[in-house]
Amino acid sequence: MLLGGMKVINTPTQFIETKLETYAYRRFGGGAAPPLICLQHFTGTLDNWDPAVTDPLARDREVILFESAGVGRSTGEVPTTIRGMAAHLLAFAEALGLTRVDLLGFSLGGMVAQEVALIRPSLVRRMLLVGTAPEGGEDIMHLEKPELRKILEDRTLSGYQTLVKLFFTPSEPSQAAGQAFATRLGARTEDREPPSGPKVAQAQLAAFRGWERVEGERFGKLRRITQPCLVVNGVRDMMIPVRNSYFLAEHLPSAMLVTYPDAGHGSLFQFHDSFVRQATLFLDSEERRST
Amino acid sequence: MLLGGMKVINTPTQFIETKLETYAYRRFGGGAAPPLICLQHFTGTLDNWDPAVTDPLARDREVILFESAGVGRSTGEVPTTIRGMAAHLLAFAEALGLTRVDLLGFSLGGMVAQEVALIRPSLVRRMLLVGTAPEGGEDIMHLEKPELRKILEDRTLSGYQTLVKLFFTPSEPSQAAGQAFATRLGARTEDREPPSGPKVAQAQLAAFRGWERVEGERFGKLRRITQPCLVVNGVRDMMIPVRNSYFLAEHLPSAMLVTYPDAGHGSLFQFHDSFVRQATLFLDSEERRST
Repeated sequence: MLLGGMKVINTPTQFIETKLETYAYRRFGGGAAPPLICLQHFTGTLDNWDPAVTDPLARDREVILFESAGVGRSTGEVPTTIRGMAAHLLAFAEALGLTRVDLLGFSLGGMVAQEVALIRPSLVRRMLLVGTAPEGGEDIMHLEKPELRKILEDRTLSGYQTLVKLFFTPSEPSQAAGQAFATRLGARTEDREPPSGPKVAQAQLAAFRGWERVEGERFGKLRRITQPCLVVNGVRDMMIPVRNSYFLAEHLPSAMLVTYPDAGHGSLFQFHDSFVRQATLFLDSEERRST
Repeated sequence: MLLGGMKVINTPTQFIETKLETYAYRRFGGGAAPPLICLQHFTGTLDNWDPAVTDPLARDREVILFESAGVGRSTGEVPTTIRGMAAHLLAFAEALGLTRVDLLGFSLGGMVAQEVALIRPSLVRRMLLVGTAPEGGEDIMHLEKPELRKILEDRTLSGYQTLVKLFFTPSEPSQAAGQAFATRLGARTEDREPPSGPKVAQAQLAAFRGWERVEGERFGKLRRITQPCLVVNGVRDMMIPVRNSYFLAEHLPSAMLVTYPDAGHGSLFQFHDSFVRQATLFLDSEERRST
């Protein structure tokens, strides 16, 4: 169903009770393509999706923004493992009766997407893996690093300004793109989610630490993810460095990689027009492996 | 001018006398965009351009295939430096009266393209850098490596079959794409160039060895190449490994990177539909940095 004018800014939050928890989500757009479920980054809520990305993607497909357990108004506790988070997405998809979806996993969400593809391969048609890392990846969200601590402890930054510093590079064009991003995030003024607190952050950081561990053959599991993937990152990502995207593109059997210059963790928001074009080409492609 | 039906298969070879040498070239297509000059790989001649790449690119622009000095029917000696090769491209462009062009540099050609952008920045609008490396790159065309020697010394391989093994991965889909590529190259039966001999190879290998040397700050020169670039490679390139493309994308100020899965040095020929789509988006884009 096409909901005229219903976009990320004004789409009402819905709630669905499942066998695990009750999840908050937003659903908009429409079309013949499988729905695209968007999986959010570290401490992000439904309100952290940039309408410049999600709205154009919803032109030819349903977009579903998913709030995992313990985040925003979803019930339950945030799991301390990626596998635990994947179980929540599976419960959500099952409750909605979805049997075939595309996934847009950003950062933490990209790890959950990979885990879901391993646990329930039949559910996942194609994946966009943005600013993320494979299991066994390196330097994943080490907030104690000086360059990140400096930003996180800067008390002069309020509102979205911390996010702008974390997700964009120090260059003038990147910071300008960051301010535009912050303005877009602020455009939704009602029916917003409560921001995440330290409890959410601690559990998700524990999940990152687990995800960094190498067990068995490094990156060996990626061979089993045979879905076409589009891996995307900025070459100056301080939070999950771009070499993790190289690992993904080199070890996933069917992954294309796109990187953006002078861009950090939020490359999809900085280059939203290009990202939407690349994502649409990829999702609409009938080819097995390429956009 | 649009030359209906004139494509890489049947476009006549032309010759132009310049202040340096007389160069063989082929010119076809037409449109308002700047012409796209294609710079060829190690030992390749005009006949090594895949019509599945060059013909669709010529739909909206002129495509000019350039034969550098000492290759094919171009006169002179093959320079033993990338800088020497760049001088031939500059003489060629000047003789044709071209003042603003796009460059598609494949492998060796990508190095020449970078050097031309440094010497004469005003000439170059945008660059496609495919399967190539920056100055100071690593493991560039070391034909003595066991995996390459095995192919080069295999006497059971004739015609294009050596190229298929070198440019494509051992997988069934990649080898099938390689055979299709060989068939396309063989479609032009008249007005062909003489294949390159050992003298061409030796001079070009000397140029590769010089290009590997790090002088001064590694990759420092790349900061001066401010043109938008699209860097493309296969993640299994044995001849110029993909990490050289990472170096380019990380150090060029305005470079996007696209990599292809299960693809080698000839990724643009294997994924020709996707490559043409990406190249066209990039060349047609009005944005400063992204496709």
